Amino acid sequence: MDEIFSKNYPLVISNVRIDGHATDIFVDDTGVIAATGRDVRKQYAREAEFIIDGDRAIALPGLVNTHTHAAMTLLRGYADDMFLQDWLSQKIWPLEAHLTGDDVYWGAKLACLEMIKTGTTAFNDMYFFMEDTARAVGEMGISSTLSYGFIDFGDPQKREAECRATERLVSHIRSLNNPRIRAAAGPHAPYTVSKEGLRWCAEFAHEQKIGIHIHVSETEKEVNDSVAQHGKRPVAVLDECGILTPRTVAAHCCWLDEDECSLFAQRGVHASHNPISNMKLATHRAMPYPQLKAAGVNVTLGTDGCSSNNNLDMFEEMKAAALLQKFFWNDPTLLPAQEALHMATAAGAKALGFGNGTLAAGEPADLILVTAGTACNVPMHNATSNLVYSCSGSAVETVLCNGRVLMLEREVPGEQEILAGAQRAASGLVKRAGDAG
Amino acid sequence: MDEIFSKNYPLVISNVRIDGHATDIFVDDTGVIAATGRDVRKQYAREAEFIIDGDRAIALPGLVNTHTHAAMTLLRGYADDMFLQDWLSQKIWPLEAHLTGDDVYWGAKLACLEMIKTGTTAFNDMYFFMEDTARAVGEMGISSTLSYGFIDFGDPQKREAECRATERLVSHIRSLNNPRIRAAAGPHAPYTVSKEGLRWCAEFAHEQKIGIHIHVSETEKEVNDSVAQHGKRPVAVLDECGILTPRTVAAHCCWLDEDECSLFAQRGVHASHNPISNMKLATHRAMPYPQLKAAGVNVTLGTDGCSSNNNLDMFEEMKAAALLQKFFWNDPTLLPAQEALHMATAAGAKALGFGNGTLAAGEPADLILVTAGTACNVPMHNATSNLVYSCSGSAVETVLCNGRVLMLEREVPGEQEILAGAQRAASGLVKRAGDAG
Repeated sequence: MDEIFSKNYPLVISNVRIDGHATDIFVDDTGVIAATGRDVRKQYAREAEFIIDGDRAIALPGLVNTHTHAAMTLLRGYADDMFLQDWLSQKIWPLEAHLTGDDVYWGAKLACLEMIKTGTTAFNDMYFFMEDTARAVGEMGISSTLSYGFIDFGDPQKREAECRATERLVSHIRSLNNPRIRAAAGPHAPYTVSKEGLRWCAEFAHEQKIGIHIHVSETEKEVNDSVAQHGKRPVAVLDECGILTPRTVAAHCCWLDEDECSLFAQRGVHASHNPISNMKLATHRAMPYPQLKAAGVNVTLGTDGCSSNNNLDMFEEMKAAALLQKFFWNDPTLLPAQEALHMATAAGAKALGFGNGTLAAGEPADLILVTAGTACNVPMHNATSNLVYSCSGSAVETVLCNGRVLMLEREVPGEQEILAGAQRAASGLVKRAGDAG
Repeated sequence: MDEIFSKNYPLVISNVRIDGHATDIFVDDTGVIAATGRDVRKQYAREAEFIIDGDRAIALPGLVNTHTHAAMTLLRGYADDMFLQDWLSQKIWPLEAHLTGDDVYWGAKLACLEMIKTGTTAFNDMYFFMEDTARAVGEMGISSTLSYGFIDFGDPQKREAECRATERLVSHIRSLNNPRIRAAAGPHAPYTVSKEGLRWCAEFAHEQKIGIHIHVSETEKEVNDSVAQHGKRPVAVLDECGILTPRTVAAHCCWLDEDECSLFAQRGVHASHNPISNMKLATHRAMPYPQLKAAGVNVTLGTDGCSSNNNLDMFEEMKAAALLQKFFWNDPTLLPAQEALHMATAAGAKALGFGNGTLAAGEPADLILVTAGTACNVPMHNATSNLVYSCSGSAVETVLCNGRVLMLEREVPGEQEILAGAQRAASGLVKRAGDAG
């Protein structure tokens, strides 16, 4: 059975439901959904090398996580329930100072495993040692956009080093020649990167035709500090530096005002909502989804890193988004299930440029099967409601990315080795930090 | 293997972790944890009829859900994303008008299945046709406190009928003579039950030595209406009628003020926090957990019914409680993981009177095993953090209630029949409602 995981094959997925209708899907060996319909199984019986019996499972586009720090799985549960500054300065940064490329590789492997097991087929990442993340992603078969977290704190020497690190990553990723591993510029945030650094990132991204991944207005303090330092709010600083583009994904966006929402729409910026992280770290304001939606911004969904979530389950994130928006903006009709699912699929795919996030013929076969035969899907009054409000990622049974089978009936090749390797890396990291400190 | 599910046996659970230490557990055939320790497996090898290999799983007390409407699983996903009054009057009530005892039986079976699969061993329920819920609960082996939802809207004739219905349920449950199925009085809420009705419930509960289960101050409107109608807030009305007792579980409690928190502490009332339902229905205020905690109130956790959640996973609810409290009260140190786990275990067990919710020798064997060998528990920096923030109920592999094995390695006897029966009941219900309407 392990053969099916080894490469792309022409295959049929039979007897699944799409939008409530039973259908078959034919995926060709270039990774494209070549046909869907009731007769597809018969029609392609000779061409298909494998038949996956969907057994009335629900077929969905793969979920797209538009903001995370994959290797931070290694820090899962290392420190919680603290004030942001204490948490960073006393716990996260001291540990990260001891990170190695090998640690990041194992953390990213664990992250990919977890994403596959919960139905995510593409993610947008920002961290360090990203060449090692690229190696992990390549082995796991998932799609990603990878950026080096560029932080200069206004220091010109540090800025030079960050520019070189960004260039090296982009050049390395080009050399991989894997269309499913892409580079982006990753200016960390307007409060950690100088205007010069932001401008460099914007120009470099434009020149290289790559995306930009940045944190924007997560906390009120950032906004106030920006006004004090620059005489303008963070979004105005970003716009002045050319960061707001149709290839930009802005994470968090909790403290955007209405004008900033309009500007995002004008510039074509994609917003990534990260509700669980925002609640855990107490940002005290939810992303203004109603205003972003009214302005026409493409709003997507992300889990943030595992040290502020503490998992990568996009099903949980869909539910949290719908709940937080209703609660904070005091309107239970806000962000209905259908919109949450759209954020996690088509909107995310559009933001990262991996297909259009649907199961239409001609689209890349980034698709997942969710079992209908489990309590979260019984009764089946409304499949979308069940997916968003009732199921967790554990209901996902099969995952294809770009036509390749990454999980079949919850089996992912090498799972136990990845868990053991990640545990070993995490224990070693904590030990080194303890020995040093 | 099915034999293990059939009745209580003396058994050993070997090689589990409790609070980070490896241990074995011996459960005797009366359903009590008779011994724990490293030598227990050897010591009780001859007495034990089964050995369950815990394989380094984490052993926890069974979770306790202190507020739900079990049979509402049948309405899962039937209507979402609506204003409370529209949702009730246009969707929920019209469908409930067609409910039969058989429907409730299947809904409760599905609820018990779902609770067992996610590690809950006891729940506090309020609904209709509760004799049918009792039948389902008895078959499934879980513990529960069952109340008939008493609603008179100030109508003396209706009140009489509700008193009789409450008496009938209590008498029926006594006749079952099952120590794990208990009755409570269930005055629905101060805005749906007259003072006379509340007084009757209080007196009846006192006389019968049973608990009281009630909704309190879920919405701001209830509080304002009470002041307008009675010249006092709902909690004062309840206190006047004798409802606030050490056997009372008050659900929601979003709009309690500081004096009401103190009064709850004085009266020994248990509060049930229902964060997911509160967010989904946009109550716009989170339960004042900091004030309740400061006052010394026993704060527990509940999922509410599946039509406002939409599942019964207490792991999800623990995380939501910690997230909502931090976010709403703007303090990331609030409700740390350890307190969330306490709410879902010891505090809940205390509220319902099913043991003390720990794994100490002499306690009833209400216990669950959570697998350590899955991504949500890797790395294992902090088991409690992983349980609360990273895992969902799908990480639970084995469940015992009162010493009887209800799930073993995720197998629950009769699962497929229950799913099919519940789907059939739900479809029939919708059809009858449609034919009538």
